[in-house]
Amino acid sequence: MKFAPSLQQLIDALRVLPGVGPKSAQRMAFTLLEDNHGASQLAQSIKQAQQTIQSCQTCQNYTQSAQCDICTDQTRSANGQICVVAQPQDVLSIEQTGHYHGRYFVLKGLLSPIDGIGPEELGLDKLQSQLQHGINELILATSPSVEGEATAFYLSEMAKQYNITVTRLAQGLPAGGELSALDSRTLGHAFSGRKQL
Amino acid sequence: MKFAPSLQQLIDALRVLPGVGPKSAQRMAFTLLEDNHGASQLAQSIKQAQQTIQSCQTCQNYTQSAQCDICTDQTRSANGQICVVAQPQDVLSIEQTGHYHGRYFVLKGLLSPIDGIGPEELGLDKLQSQLQHGINELILATSPSVEGEATAFYLSEMAKQYNITVTRLAQGLPAGGELSALDSRTLGHAFSGRKQL
Ligand SMILES: [Zn+2]
Ligand SMILES: [Zn+2]
Repeated sequence: MKFAPSLQQLIDALRVLPGVGPKSAQRMAFTLLEDNHGASQLAQSIKQAQQTIQSCQTCQNYTQSAQCDICTDQTRSANGQICVVAQPQDVLSIEQTGHYHGRYFVLKGLLSPIDGIGPEELGLDKLQSQLQHGINELILATSPSVEGEATAFYLSEMAKQYNITVTRLAQGLPAGGELSALDSRTLGHAFSGRKQL
Repeated sequence: MKFAPSLQQLIDALRVLPGVGPKSAQRMAFTLLEDNHGASQLAQSIKQAQQTIQSCQTCQNYTQSAQCDICTDQTRSANGQICVVAQPQDVLSIEQTGHYHGRYFVLKGLLSPIDGIGPEELGLDKLQSQLQHGINELILATSPSVEGEATAFYLSEMAKQYNITVTRLAQGLPAGGELSALDSRTLGHAFSGRKQL
């Protein structure tokens, strides 16, 4: 059975969402057609987010202003810590552990020369310039994958130039696991047990 | 931790999708922010579907023309069967069984006086006028719920006025189950075993 073209197009477009297979995409499309208000709201929220969400000038996390709420919060820079994560979602995961009250730096990726992702693509020059002013500890919270370890190694070499303590989350993290998929307790333990490199 | 307002709004708007809880909505929102092209495509497909998808004049199923593909297909009306379903999704489910080659009538709801859904809201006058021309069998494929049974009863009374055979899908359907959630085989068996009322 063939769907009307614009219905099929909607079903296809919904597949961009993580974890949405052909069957769920169909169910979602029908729901959207039945809920005009909700569907309009969703289309408009996507456009609005695309137009207003930008990268924080300081930490590269998503924000609606030049600087994000965490970077503008003086109490977050008091202890001179920066925690480096791969993705914006990881900031949320770490915040939920309640173990950390410093600032972040969001790479939005990991070093991967094969894919053409080098230090510049991750904004590491921006991070490097920040290391020169009042930073005591760089916490490397990238995942224990090949790219995560390579990125952590690069960052630790960079930080050592400035005599900054470099720590890495304890290897309580499951191998190859995504930070954003962990429960707060596991991630909290990994945070507390972090070791100096 | 608070998200930027337009990010939070996007997370909230995604909850309109079936089976999407707070955690998946967050994951989806981040994915959309990372995939500008996919996100634009989705927003635009929603708008496009809203603007172009309408109800088939004959069967009320979703279509992009005045009449849907099934209603314009002469071979589908040859045997004089109309299968009545509650939702557009149910048409898809029945088509996938391969057991049926007649036409459909899509109620887009079920009789529910408490919710103010009467025969008019379901377009039953439109169905009634169709029963007067070359229809031999009305197949009632509404779910075996209270509303589904009440709707089936109403339709069978209506069809009897025109000496039309009325059948109901065999009670192999799980009680209270949604047609669109069934596998093709179960639904196919229910179709083959349908009984005259
Ligand atoms: Zn920031
Ligand atoms: Zn039709």
